[in-house]
Amino acid sequence: MSSYRDAGVDQDAADALIATYAELAAKTGTGGDAAGFAGLLPLDEVLRRGYKRPALAASTDTVGTKIDLLRRTGHHRTAGWDSVAMNVDDVVCCGAEPLLFVDCIATERLDPDEATEIVTGVAEACIEAGCRLVGGETAQLPGLLTHGSYEVMGACVGVVDLDQAWGPHRVRDGDTIVGLAASGLHSNGYSLVRRVLGDDQPPDFVLTPTAIYARKLLAVAADVEVHAAAHVTGGGIPGNAGRAVPDGLEPDLDFQAWPRPAVYDWLGDRGVSELEMLATFNLGVGMILITPAAGDVIARLTDLGVDAWVIGQVTAS
Amino acid sequence: MSSYRDAGVDQDAADALIATYAELAAKTGTGGDAAGFAGLLPLDEVLRRGYKRPALAASTDTVGTKIDLLRRTGHHRTAGWDSVAMNVDDVVCCGAEPLLFVDCIATERLDPDEATEIVTGVAEACIEAGCRLVGGETAQLPGLLTHGSYEVMGACVGVVDLDQAWGPHRVRDGDTIVGLAASGLHSNGYSLVRRVLGDDQPPDFVLTPTAIYARKLLAVAADVEVHAAAHVTGGGIPGNAGRAVPDGLEPDLDFQAWPRPAVYDWLGDRGVSELEMLATFNLGVGMILITPAAGDVIARLTDLGVDAWVIGQVTAS
Repeated sequence: MSSYRDAGVDQDAADALIATYAELAAKTGTGGDAAGFAGLLPLDEVLRRGYKRPALAASTDTVGTKIDLLRRTGHHRTAGWDSVAMNVDDVVCCGAEPLLFVDCIATERLDPDEATEIVTGVAEACIEAGCRLVGGETAQLPGLLTHGSYEVMGACVGVVDLDQAWGPHRVRDGDTIVGLAASGLHSNGYSLVRRVLGDDQPPDFVLTPTAIYARKLLAVAADVEVHAAAHVTGGGIPGNAGRAVPDGLEPDLDFQAWPRPAVYDWLGDRGVSELEMLATFNLGVGMILITPAAGDVIARLTDLGVDAWVIGQVTAS
Repeated sequence: MSSYRDAGVDQDAADALIATYAELAAKTGTGGDAAGFAGLLPLDEVLRRGYKRPALAASTDTVGTKIDLLRRTGHHRTAGWDSVAMNVDDVVCCGAEPLLFVDCIATERLDPDEATEIVTGVAEACIEAGCRLVGGETAQLPGLLTHGSYEVMGACVGVVDLDQAWGPHRVRDGDTIVGLAASGLHSNGYSLVRRVLGDDQPPDFVLTPTAIYARKLLAVAADVEVHAAAHVTGGGIPGNAGRAVPDGLEPDLDFQAWPRPAVYDWLGDRGVSELEMLATFNLGVGMILITPAAGDVIARLTDLGVDAWVIGQVTAS
């Protein structure tokens, strides 16, 4: 007789985790809770805040190949954390407040201890970002993922008032570009990092959890005018700063304006070219804000514990 | 020199697809459009419908290992379609109207033609479900996925009035359980199907796109009272019907009440036990509705082209 368990899927293990996940999710907020097949988030409190033209803002992403290094070194909690970080900080780039998160853990074979650590990291990051974990899924995919591997995909939905949304349409000639310090390489460029590493053990500085900026950006924007934001992910600073600026204007960046972290010397020493680094990694700036009031923005960020620097100006192209 | 492309990531191929994806997404609706880093969906039209206590309902899921058979046989469009089907029909189970969808395609190595077919299927399914594709992501994960593999994860967010939401809290002793015809195996139990197949080519009847019920269920519920719904996925009919019924009541099911599709004879002939089938597959019933007005529900479903049967009653446990 064939059985589902023989085929590599452990339904009992998956079921046993549901209660654990529900407990972790409850730490991120309660109210609507599970509707059996979907997670619910009541909007009444959100809508009471007086949005004139509310819109949902949605993002999805995976952790990417950083996850392979995290898994091999036992940093499962960081894998969960990073799946949130990649998404909430995409959503906040239009000025949206992250509302809810769902995670989907794809495993070659479900390890309940690893999965619990992953979801613990997801919940911790949701708390940091101020959004609710309303649902999740574990999928066991024997044959699709390589032996022992897993990947975490997440999706975040936030809410923004379209009349207040940040974006290229608000950016003006002469605005200042402010860079916010990254916590490390974040979660981009890791196929290259893994190639550089070969069979070597990854050093700690490539395993750092990705910074989560969402709450801090919204706190700054409550006091100071912000025109646009750019999450520095694939494409690096040039690729992403350009996405926040309208046609006819361009970001004029000074790459000497902030201290470049040592990890980039390490990558350069191992044969990664300057051009490749520029197009792939954040170079120490994980988030960009475009503002007419850079001094106030930097002062508020400093109060919130975030190092930030003027890294350029918006000019006519 | 190490380069990102050498490490298995083709950024140019990924960039070239963005315009194609945007065109496909636009077919599912327009209005908020991209905010650069997140997809926007204005809520004004939704909120004008007069929800008293609006809540978001969110779901996430992968296609699962069916995707391996779809990929090997060139049914990439079905892979995209199924990623939507699995999620929108989870969201509709609380009575929520699907609003938006985001997809995340994880590949071992990005094949632009395959990816375009996948996103085409995602967009077609979003149109069928009445929801908007507002964003997506392709992630190239060399080393994590086995050679040539891909997986599609998706997330759907809908909106429901909490005062009107379906669920176990509305189910009463004596309610009728209506089963809606499946289009095939849908997207569950495929690790077992693949084991049964071994090296054989998959027959067409295991590759059928998953039925999408969402719009039809909402159309029925606009006219007839629906108390709860259950999407028949992992856990089969017994596992999922039970999730729609409150403590103190239970579903009394008649498994002879509908014609069992031939695919289950095929599985049985290949050594899958009756018990295993019951707990793993939908057995021909892809969605369950619980209602006090089964006759009207079935008449409306028949009008909409969906075969449906009375498959049981809710009774005291």
